[in-house]
Amino acid sequence: MEFNFEDHPHRRYNPLTGEWIQVSPHRAKRPWQGQVEKIEEEQRPEHDPDCYLCAGNTRIGGEVNPNYTDTYSFQNDFAALLEDIPSGEVNEHNGLFRAKSERGLCKVICFSPRHDLTIPEMEVGGIRKVVDLWCKEYAELGTKSYINHVQIFENKGSVMGCSNPHPHGQIWAQESVPLEPAKKAENQKTYFDTYGKTLLSDYVTEEIKQGTRVVYENEHFVALVPYWAVWPFETMIVPKRAVARITDLTEEEKDAFADAYKALTVKYDNIFEVSFPYSAGIHQAPTDGEDHPEWHMHMCFYPPLLRSATVKKFMVGYEMLANAQRDITAETAAARIREQSLEHYKQRSL
Amino acid sequence: MEFNFEDHPHRRYNPLTGEWIQVSPHRAKRPWQGQVEKIEEEQRPEHDPDCYLCAGNTRIGGEVNPNYTDTYSFQNDFAALLEDIPSGEVNEHNGLFRAKSERGLCKVICFSPRHDLTIPEMEVGGIRKVVDLWCKEYAELGTKSYINHVQIFENKGSVMGCSNPHPHGQIWAQESVPLEPAKKAENQKTYFDTYGKTLLSDYVTEEIKQGTRVVYENEHFVALVPYWAVWPFETMIVPKRAVARITDLTEEEKDAFADAYKALTVKYDNIFEVSFPYSAGIHQAPTDGEDHPEWHMHMCFYPPLLRSATVKKFMVGYEMLANAQRDITAETAAARIREQSLEHYKQRSL
Ligand SMILES: O=P(O)(O)O[C@H]1O[C@H](CO)[C@@H](O)[C@H](O)[C@H]1O
Ligand SMILES: O=P(O)(O)O[C@H]1O[C@H](CO)[C@@H](O)[C@H](O)[C@H]1O
Repeated sequence: MEFNFEDHPHRRYNPLTGEWIQVSPHRAKRPWQGQVEKIEEEQRPEHDPDCYLCAGNTRIGGEVNPNYTDTYSFQNDFAALLEDIPSGEVNEHNGLFRAKSERGLCKVICFSPRHDLTIPEMEVGGIRKVVDLWCKEYAELGTKSYINHVQIFENKGSVMGCSNPHPHGQIWAQESVPLEPAKKAENQKTYFDTYGKTLLSDYVTEEIKQGTRVVYENEHFVALVPYWAVWPFETMIVPKRAVARITDLTEEEKDAFADAYKALTVKYDNIFEVSFPYSAGIHQAPTDGEDHPEWHMHMCFYPPLLRSATVKKFMVGYEMLANAQRDITAETAAARIREQSLEHYKQRSL
Repeated sequence: MEFNFEDHPHRRYNPLTGEWIQVSPHRAKRPWQGQVEKIEEEQRPEHDPDCYLCAGNTRIGGEVNPNYTDTYSFQNDFAALLEDIPSGEVNEHNGLFRAKSERGLCKVICFSPRHDLTIPEMEVGGIRKVVDLWCKEYAELGTKSYINHVQIFENKGSVMGCSNPHPHGQIWAQESVPLEPAKKAENQKTYFDTYGKTLLSDYVTEEIKQGTRVVYENEHFVALVPYWAVWPFETMIVPKRAVARITDLTEEEKDAFADAYKALTVKYDNIFEVSFPYSAGIHQAPTDGEDHPEWHMHMCFYPPLLRSATVKKFMVGYEMLANAQRDITAETAAARIREQSLEHYKQRSL
């Protein structure tokens, strides 16, 4: 019997984080008797008078949203990070009790005034405006001397803790570099120092050559299921050129980014013909004023659905206490995403 | 304005994993408009003819469960790890593509033949039998030459991906030491080499002195909300004596472990008067044949509920992409658990 990565349990290494993932390819076959998710397929109005993100509405904090026509951003009324706090520190008993004040701020990014849309249902031109707003926010927030990391992300779908279906994302900007980007910074630095190229430029070149994990490609970007994916249909959108941060993308590259973002999310929605939930976000260079030629920006998508529109992967017991674990291979998932149409199922002519 | 850990956002350090946690104490105040969980409060029968864990029933794989009277364990019919696979390895393109076969096995541990019970509703004597079975399994699995780590865990509640309410846990045993225990091994080793004592013996001594995070204590064990807790009501049960593995506990300590396990889970159920969901598991020395005096075993509880029986904490966007984050302080959570009665709400005389 020969070892076979399509059938036998194995571990794969994530060179960006330096961590191993447990892969159990045969496991998706077990019957599922556990929790099923609700499908949210209500028809939403273009404008909802009760939505605190719709144009012209009053938010909980009392502020009134302007009549914005494309994108709109504001400070989160219930921010997890605050700008105006004193600093403080604890370090006691051999470092067993350590704490440190953390300054930062949280913003909400409305993708469109249309309450009834999602990224895959928007025009590429509208998505390009989202990319532009991210660039503006990253630049502005990053300029604050105490902000060293700007985390752009989106929670899509109530199963991902999203409490408002209005298309929006968030930005949390802060003093420290958080854990996930810090791990990636370290490994990219080591690779760059060793090979004189970014880790992801070598990786992407090889992935395009192999093709088996690529799900979409345009002139400047590639969307792929990473070799070390954790979530069932996890993907990454990566620029082919080594670009450290979104503000370094050319105008043409920004268009290509918007195009890839739409193409990938349309394919996602088409898999189970449902608005595909995920958390997504951009990993890029810290805003510490340094150059960071080792950083190669990329956008990560972590979608929880596994078998159907209602059965997700639970990252629980073993995964929380021991190790990330997945039930299908990256190659199987990639084939499934790749084969989907670029036409959104809702817009398909019958 | 003075910095104040009860009100201001800060980070805390986890000396076991070497990672920082973002704490946003003020954030639990925000209104919740997102997903609510179903409460599972059906009356279950003592024996369910359709349950594949009940005594005497036939499992999906065709095997028949014996008429067990206390605990029972068997190999998982849909195991994520397999014993009988060939070995294989990939290491290509500057280490960007690395994979390795992983041998192991998965077992299911039935806590009781009673389909209608959960740990907090069982007698301490019955829980002690669960501890004994864990010891037996840890010893037996650990003796296999290729098994270096034995992960004992439980997923409780459908919100934690548990697909059968029959009281049970799991054991996944494998070749490699998974990520979470590997991090803890490293930091405990450094501490032990520096101070000649286990990290957790110093930590527990100080916690007992301070008292603010302790939720239950008996002669040999303490249950507490760690200073660096991530989940809203996260706790740890730790032996006061530096014990590397459950099989090193004395008979009296095993009784005390069962007692603390029951006390903590009764308090959990009482918080929202609902069967409190969680993933729990034991971190202890690897089964590599070495002594590991640096290891101090402990059982971790990761419960997702935050505000009520139906509103959980979502570890999504920021948490997945950036950093673990919590919305209340460890001290607030500890006070809430500590004040709960040791009498289960279902058994309370009216
Ligand atoms: O083995 P079970 O109970 O079918 O499955 C559950 O626990 C496993 C171990 O934590 C997880 O991998 C699964 O996602 C979860 O649904
Ligand atoms: O900020 P929101 O959308 O209210 O909240 C959501 O996203 C946050 C950032 O990932 C999480 O901390 C919350 O648990 C989640 O419910």
